Amino acid sequence: MARRRQLFEGRAKVLFEGPEPGTLVAHFKDDACSENNEKTERKTGTIIGKGVINNRISEYLMTKLSEVGVPTHFVRSLNMREQLVRAVEIIPLKVVVRNVVAGSLAERFGLAEGEPLPRSIVELYYKSDQLKDPLVLEEHVTAFGWASPFEIEEMMSLSLRINDYLSGLFMGIGIRLIDFKIEFGRLFEGDQMRIVLADEISPDNCRLWDAETDEKLDIDRFRRDMDKIAEGYQEVARRLGVLPSNAEPNGSGPKLVH
Amino acid sequence: MARRRQLFEGRAKVLFEGPEPGTLVAHFKDDACSENNEKTERKTGTIIGKGVINNRISEYLMTKLSEVGVPTHFVRSLNMREQLVRAVEIIPLKVVVRNVVAGSLAERFGLAEGEPLPRSIVELYYKSDQLKDPLVLEEHVTAFGWASPFEIEEMMSLSLRINDYLSGLFMGIGIRLIDFKIEFGRLFEGDQMRIVLADEISPDNCRLWDAETDEKLDIDRFRRDMDKIAEGYQEVARRLGVLPSNAEPNGSGPKLVH
Repeated sequence: MARRRQLFEGRAKVLFEGPEPGTLVAHFKDDACSENNEKTERKTGTIIGKGVINNRISEYLMTKLSEVGVPTHFVRSLNMREQLVRAVEIIPLKVVVRNVVAGSLAERFGLAEGEPLPRSIVELYYKSDQLKDPLVLEEHVTAFGWASPFEIEEMMSLSLRINDYLSGLFMGIGIRLIDFKIEFGRLFEGDQMRIVLADEISPDNCRLWDAETDEKLDIDRFRRDMDKIAEGYQEVARRLGVLPSNAEPNGSGPKLVH
Repeated sequence: MARRRQLFEGRAKVLFEGPEPGTLVAHFKDDACSENNEKTERKTGTIIGKGVINNRISEYLMTKLSEVGVPTHFVRSLNMREQLVRAVEIIPLKVVVRNVVAGSLAERFGLAEGEPLPRSIVELYYKSDQLKDPLVLEEHVTAFGWASPFEIEEMMSLSLRINDYLSGLFMGIGIRLIDFKIEFGRLFEGDQMRIVLADEISPDNCRLWDAETDEKLDIDRFRRDMDKIAEGYQEVARRLGVLPSNAEPNGSGPKLVH
């Protein structure tokens, strides 16, 4: 491990140089971090076992998305906390798809959280810690050269497909997909360039509510100082059928061995 | 019941005039009917309880599709075998979406059933018993005035959205959506016309295979003289959480009270 070259350390993941050219190893950490919408306050902490679960959930969802024709950076799982991904040129945008009012949308427009939107909304944010990830228009994106009109259209169209498929998949296991954040990258293969999903998909970047009770099963439990944070992640993994067997809930309170 | 005016009797459904203008009552029968691809042989029979289950499954899936913004003719369930739907002008096309090679696609091109397609295929068939529902091109559809280019685009786009959502939903309950057949209609509201999904969605018109075992859970069990036909339908309803409680499987073999 020590000999691998670390390329990037983010809030929840570390990226290492991969074993083959054009690949990276994504290492999923237990670290959690959240900020208020103005990014003036930051909270950090650890959710025991989160990295293992997010690695599994993300592997499962990437595989399924790939099966229905959504191109992703995912190659294969390597171990409990790591997956091999294709190295891509990240487009500096966060794409947010919203089905139900929550989080910053509720705050910005003074709306009640939990209100279904009449139609899904796709929002683009410019990735910049310094600028606090500002909301941007397509006009900004093309004017500043962050992505071409074709790339924006491709990201929008893939995001809506991902939303349809994942909304169905989660509804099948009794979970409402409220919203999610994803990123895309440019994958170069010879002369060809393709836009591919280049992010994890997990309770760290999806809002997931139990369809019966509206119970939150995602990072909002951490953001809002609720209890049973790890249990939310475990419940999502359990319903997807990908909970590591040594992480099954038991009477004394579930803990992941890691 | 006897006073209602029957408008149409199909293989699996009867349509009655509805209680309000612009509505119809769809009555789901237990009758089953299948034909070989050349439509030279027809097999008829009864699958006990199928109507009740298809009514439930269809209600559930229509409601969920409507929640994600797919317009449908469904209004509400009326009783165990009947649902209220909007009266629409049916477009005389069967739209088939295929994810995996099966049925007539396997036969026409000599392909092995079960082979995943590199991308989903949407096929249009002209609805005509006399002509045996021939495969048609978009050029035929517009040349003969069955639908406009806009309507075809709308049907194609809705069909792919329905496919994404349902593929996810069924995958969430361990079922692969192999292919399905749907129909659309024109819904007139004042000066406005909308294309809406105007069909049931059930194991009668979807191929549904268990994701682990490839076991068929649909009308193919009937078509191919397999046993446990009703059980396939019940299993789909049970996994969707809509199996009528008096139809729960038990040791003596599941039977629907009807």
